[in-house]
Amino acid sequence: MGKGDLERIEMKSIGLVSRTSPDEDVKDKSLVSRIVLRKDLTKALDGIEDFSHILVIYWLHNVKGAEKPILHHPSQKRESQPLGIFATRAPIRPNPIGLTLVELVSRDENVLVVRGLDAVDGTPVLDIKPYPDWEQGRPIIVTDFKVPKWLTRTDDQHL
Amino acid sequence: MGKGDLERIEMKSIGLVSRTSPDEDVKDKSLVSRIVLRKDLTKALDGIEDFSHILVIYWLHNVKGAEKPILHHPSQKRESQPLGIFATRAPIRPNPIGLTLVELVSRDENVLVVRGLDAVDGTPVLDIKPYPDWEQGRPIIVTDFKVPKWLTRTDDQHL
Repeated sequence: MGKGDLERIEMKSIGLVSRTSPDEDVKDKSLVSRIVLRKDLTKALDGIEDFSHILVIYWLHNVKGAEKPILHHPSQKRESQPLGIFATRAPIRPNPIGLTLVELVSRDENVLVVRGLDAVDGTPVLDIKPYPDWEQGRPIIVTDFKVPKWLTRTDDQHL
Repeated sequence: MGKGDLERIEMKSIGLVSRTSPDEDVKDKSLVSRIVLRKDLTKALDGIEDFSHILVIYWLHNVKGAEKPILHHPSQKRESQPLGIFATRAPIRPNPIGLTLVELVSRDENVLVVRGLDAVDGTPVLDIKPYPDWEQGRPIIVTDFKVPKWLTRTDDQHL
């Protein structure tokens, strides 16, 4: 390991998540919310309307960074192995970064309306990327993948 | 806009990208590279072997953050509208965050071997997430999407 691992990395929010009501269930993927970008970044959205989906990278400002690398399986009802944090989508992570694929409903100047963003009102946004990624003009979509068995059990939805 | 947009957000690298040769073409998706995690985070990888693909979020430490929100189309040969940075995957962004979907080849303790990571040797890694995301035990895969015409032109591969 070089010096990089000790480096502190500093970012600045590019905007904030704004929800209709601070009480709504952010896990409800059918709900619409807004990303209000900093005014000086308005033109950075030019052309994003041509994508139907975008990836939103945000900062889970209410979550304390994980000090322990292991997430003990929350379900007490059955035998299960503890999972490493990076094998889960749990918000408690060394760097509490959120990443969600959302539907881009519309754009008006510096404001994006999106569907399916599971971030609370006031969440700082770090980056926005078009979906999907591409290589030499070819979209990269992986549909042939392997996931562990616990993922497809509905009682593990919170991981 | 609240105070959040002025907030400075601090992160710490969880590990570094290590490549066989610092000269190899990182855009070659067939190449294998390693992610060497901090030793104290070794157990945070437990269970990740059960995924065939992971998302790697990293810090483009060699790239200066974008000061201008617009990326002028690099191709001079034809008329084209300038694109906003967030409508592209260009590394020059307000927060130079990289995000790549890679194939997980193997794990040995704190080291992941991955295929297709387009990050240079020594790149600090910020987070690792299993692919795909899921909701109530159902993987979320979006195959019905819309992208702009310029994306599928092979001369725009660098965007």
